[in-house]
Amino acid sequence: MPKVSEAHLEARREQILDGARRAFARHGYHGATVARLEEEIGLSRGAIFNYYPDKWSLFYELASRDQHELTTLLLEQGLDATIRHLTTENPEWMTVYFEVLRILRGDPERMNEFASRGGEGREEEVKAWLRGLHEKGEFRDDVTLEDIVAFINIVANGVALATSLGLPLDADALVKVVHQGIDPPK
Amino acid sequence: MPKVSEAHLEARREQILDGARRAFARHGYHGATVARLEEEIGLSRGAIFNYYPDKWSLFYELASRDQHELTTLLLEQGLDATIRHLTTENPEWMTVYFEVLRILRGDPERMNEFASRGGEGREEEVKAWLRGLHEKGEFRDDVTLEDIVAFINIVANGVALATSLGLPLDADALVKVVHQGIDPPK
Repeated sequence: MPKVSEAHLEARREQILDGARRAFARHGYHGATVARLEEEIGLSRGAIFNYYPDKWSLFYELASRDQHELTTLLLEQGLDATIRHLTTENPEWMTVYFEVLRILRGDPERMNEFASRGGEGREEEVKAWLRGLHEKGEFRDDVTLEDIVAFINIVANGVALATSLGLPLDADALVKVVHQGIDPPK
Repeated sequence: MPKVSEAHLEARREQILDGARRAFARHGYHGATVARLEEEIGLSRGAIFNYYPDKWSLFYELASRDQHELTTLLLEQGLDATIRHLTTENPEWMTVYFEVLRILRGDPERMNEFASRGGEGREEEVKAWLRGLHEKGEFRDDVTLEDIVAFINIVANGVALATSLGLPLDADALVKVVHQGIDPPK
């Protein structure tokens, strides 16, 4: 029976996370009350918090999965695909991130936890990947790799913010200009 | 006597705005209750709301002044100075912007009002300035001026977000990489 039980647990977890994502997107982090989480998820608070101890754990798990997905996309398909992906994110869901960041400013412990979401050594993996590209001469060499990473992060943040505001973005043009920023001079 | 009275009104207005900015930065937009506004400003709610009808008007006036200052900086000292300035903004105050954007998503009327803050035709002025630079060949011509403006906005948003999170930014490196993005190929 353990296999059936595992599959069942996994399905429940997915149901909970899907519903929680909808509740956060619809009502915001603060506005996603336990009653609204129950409503979107379709399970009682007892059942929900049996899987995830509190609202923060739910959000953290969703954010970790997003981060994991983005990292995988970056490593497997590269920067352009990742930027394009960011421009297609759900604005309501992106907006939850900005609300959460506002809250985390007053909570350094959770801010650190949040910053390392989706981690498990993948940050090192990304760094190694970027270093490899740098060594192959795929980036300009008159600024440091660190500066290029900081620039990419700023663009990614800016895209996420624009997306959250529902601003139209021309992903092709953006990718082109970003490349001009980081590619070696021709 | 009208001149004395004008000066007095103006001083009061500055006192109110300075205190409101501190209250928003310290407690967030939502957390800046009337009692906290009174405390930071040092005036009664009656006096405060005699100058600005509600909390939104206070925030809107502060955001308009910021926008006006940024636009002036851009037109008088250029893009680099503006990016550098953004990296030195107060993180707590920047964070209020992200909180407000979250709120405005559900309020299209105020979102439009907010988007045109500090306006009075200055948006046209900025566009004309950028068009002038474009015509002088100061930007690359293989993407449209619109795309360059979108890129600059994204970088500005990303810098504001990084600043709000208290992330260290190397303004020199950032300016360099942004220029590589928008300058004509050498």
